[in-house]
Amino acid sequence: MKIKFTSLLTLAVFLTIATANAQDSLTIRKIYDEALVNGKCYSNLHDLCKNIGPRLSGSANAQKAVEWGKKLMESYGFDRVYLQEVMVPHWVRGEKEQAAIINGKTRTPVPVCALGMSIATPATGITADIIEVHSLKQLDSLGEANIKGKIVFFNRPFDPRFIETGAAYGTAGDQRRAGPSAAAKYGAVGAIVRSLTESIDDYPHTGSLAYTEFKVPAAAISTKGANLLSDMLKSGKHIKFYFKQSCQQLPDVLSYNVIGELTGTENPNKYITIGGHLDSWDLAEGASDDGTGVMQSLEVLRILKATGYHPKNTIRAVFFMNEENGDKGGQKYAELAAKNKEDHIAAIETDEGGFTPRGFGFTGLSPTALQNVKLNWKPLLEPYEADRLVAGGGGTDIEPLKTAAPTVVLIGYLPDSQRYFDMHHSAKDVFELVNKRELELGSAAITALVYLIDQHGFQ
Amino acid sequence: MKIKFTSLLTLAVFLTIATANAQDSLTIRKIYDEALVNGKCYSNLHDLCKNIGPRLSGSANAQKAVEWGKKLMESYGFDRVYLQEVMVPHWVRGEKEQAAIINGKTRTPVPVCALGMSIATPATGITADIIEVHSLKQLDSLGEANIKGKIVFFNRPFDPRFIETGAAYGTAGDQRRAGPSAAAKYGAVGAIVRSLTESIDDYPHTGSLAYTEFKVPAAAISTKGANLLSDMLKSGKHIKFYFKQSCQQLPDVLSYNVIGELTGTENPNKYITIGGHLDSWDLAEGASDDGTGVMQSLEVLRILKATGYHPKNTIRAVFFMNEENGDKGGQKYAELAAKNKEDHIAAIETDEGGFTPRGFGFTGLSPTALQNVKLNWKPLLEPYEADRLVAGGGGTDIEPLKTAAPTVVLIGYLPDSQRYFDMHHSAKDVFELVNKRELELGSAAITALVYLIDQHGFQ
Repeated sequence: MKIKFTSLLTLAVFLTIATANAQDSLTIRKIYDEALVNGKCYSNLHDLCKNIGPRLSGSANAQKAVEWGKKLMESYGFDRVYLQEVMVPHWVRGEKEQAAIINGKTRTPVPVCALGMSIATPATGITADIIEVHSLKQLDSLGEANIKGKIVFFNRPFDPRFIETGAAYGTAGDQRRAGPSAAAKYGAVGAIVRSLTESIDDYPHTGSLAYTEFKVPAAAISTKGANLLSDMLKSGKHIKFYFKQSCQQLPDVLSYNVIGELTGTENPNKYITIGGHLDSWDLAEGASDDGTGVMQSLEVLRILKATGYHPKNTIRAVFFMNEENGDKGGQKYAELAAKNKEDHIAAIETDEGGFTPRGFGFTGLSPTALQNVKLNWKPLLEPYEADRLVAGGGGTDIEPLKTAAPTVVLIGYLPDSQRYFDMHHSAKDVFELVNKRELELGSAAITALVYLIDQHGFQ
Repeated sequence: MKIKFTSLLTLAVFLTIATANAQDSLTIRKIYDEALVNGKCYSNLHDLCKNIGPRLSGSANAQKAVEWGKKLMESYGFDRVYLQEVMVPHWVRGEKEQAAIINGKTRTPVPVCALGMSIATPATGITADIIEVHSLKQLDSLGEANIKGKIVFFNRPFDPRFIETGAAYGTAGDQRRAGPSAAAKYGAVGAIVRSLTESIDDYPHTGSLAYTEFKVPAAAISTKGANLLSDMLKSGKHIKFYFKQSCQQLPDVLSYNVIGELTGTENPNKYITIGGHLDSWDLAEGASDDGTGVMQSLEVLRILKATGYHPKNTIRAVFFMNEENGDKGGQKYAELAAKNKEDHIAAIETDEGGFTPRGFGFTGLSPTALQNVKLNWKPLLEPYEADRLVAGGGGTDIEPLKTAAPTVVLIGYLPDSQRYFDMHHSAKDVFELVNKRELELGSAAITALVYLIDQHGFQ
């Protein structure tokens, strides 16, 4: 079968013009040189991970991270550095969780961790029959008759056929978010959820659940644990499950978004925001989620300043608080943006890890404007292999801005997605799994985009 | 400054037509599903790394790898599996190397390893003054007066400004290949070469040198060791260096390329070859260099067969022997291709690691043919993010084919390059640093390209 090129078969024509805007090209090269030769985001990330570490909202470490982040921004001499007050939830894990598969007199321990915002089990734990389901729909079809008094085991794995792992996470994620309450509604006594990762290992991956009025204790089980449990359930023997966790919700705590600015020389009240989230889950250092994002956001301002660039519009780096279990920082930021009548041109979020850059996803651009972005900027980003410019993108922290500033363009930084969920929300999310050059190339790509938006806006 | 779109400024027009060749699109999706759902390359790589391990040409392990590779190919029931005899060099490292920086009575040990094909030091080692240089040109300008009787320390680091790390390797590599003999020519007694990596750590990276008639013992020093040595030399104190190695060249050994084929249904004497190299350096498992490449090459044939595809042309997977220190396998393959009058349409090499796919580089295509490749195939590969199709590419193993089969198109598989030189030729090159999905996506991308070439050729 031959590929044919007739105009009839031409479904789309994509025109990339190597617009020789020499100044843009030179500035972007300068940005990359600064990022790759004098980059600071890797050593800053090291400090955040190793000197502070886990920093769940409301914790003492989260407060340390706020203070450290503010000082760090101040040390770079940005035009303005300040905190934005926000009340955040304060959930604590308590003692290390325990779990076991019970087969007669044999108890096989398996690695679990409470899902974020879960309630505790009784102090003696929960022991009950356990039933495996693969979807919320299947749960509905089983109904109360089959569920009542049991633990529900949500075991739908990541679908490996997705090319981007975020899509697999998206389609498996309902089990973690909505599964526990859906099970509780049918009288379940607990929920165990397969970790949201394709990696087959012994690490449970936490993450927030979203309770309705129906609540049961819920925990994530490692993928190896899930496979073992599933195999044992298939064996036909009478399998029970035991787990114990002592997590609890404490009163809300005052916390902060940390903000740094380079003031616009022409339009000081027009903003291009770049941010990640400072809070992290409590199981590891929050290196890839989202230490890399906050350090890249800071680096954007540092690079612009170091290269002597004076932005037309105000460029803002935001360390958002509480992305993981409440999004209170993102909501507060949007609320104040509306209140202060800030004109947001664009907001970029980097919260998919510090992996090698692929490009950016855009929400809020007309098809023509997106086409222009591709036409103009793809050739400038192509030498840096960061030229995948696609429709759709943003992030949890900047999402509320859409309502507060309806003309804002929301942009998600797209690093390569393959490794993110190997470590995401688990004890594996440590500094050592971040590659220095990949992180720096990301900072440079984002800075280049910020520069292009600042210079040219969206047409 | 606005970007302007006038026809005068239009330097290049790049037209991508989403040619809706539904059959191609469906077949490629099928290829990806097979690779991602039933992929075998990751578990095969595990066996190669953990059950065989290091396999330098001429070693017992290299022979084990040949036998294992042939059996593995046979187990998949390909149309033809055979060995191709080739004589290879047999260099052995001997005892673990020793080295130290000597400052008066203080000896500071530093990690070194002999460069591949180096001669040994005397049994007592070499102790001498050491002089740092940053280029072969600088060595020339220093001349015999400054070099004679000393050890030369080549310490030019990777240039971090290159976006692809292979370019940094290329420009720093002359120190390792040509440095030792260049130093010897001026009467040096030894050469110490900064490891060819951007990673700052304690691992020395080996790799072949190429002697002229002037020979001195030569070793790689870890980047941390190199930085320390450089700092101490700058201190102004009288620094000496000591190193000892017992490597030697043994008589050549009979070894083999391992070849598997799916016979072409229309053109059995036309070939599309895909290969990597089975030999590896002796310091680690040769996981990324090039276990990933051989396992991906095998996987291409497995996927084609598993999806029920009957190729028009013969598709050949080759495990080349001796890429690391002689390229005898690649030369023998080309010699026999010429002798047997094989018509090679294309040869693809995968020897840049099993990282996330970016695309392919082509050598031997006319500009029009390359343009057609982009026009036709880029839209088919874009959904898989493997659509970076560029001029220039190939690999050491397939390079000799160019002379043997002048019309062959040589193609280099281009995975993301950022992490390769972190581990390359060092003790860090282990299975654990390979990501399952990245490896599988690479197999799928290569299979998709093989399919497209088989169906459509180059126009």
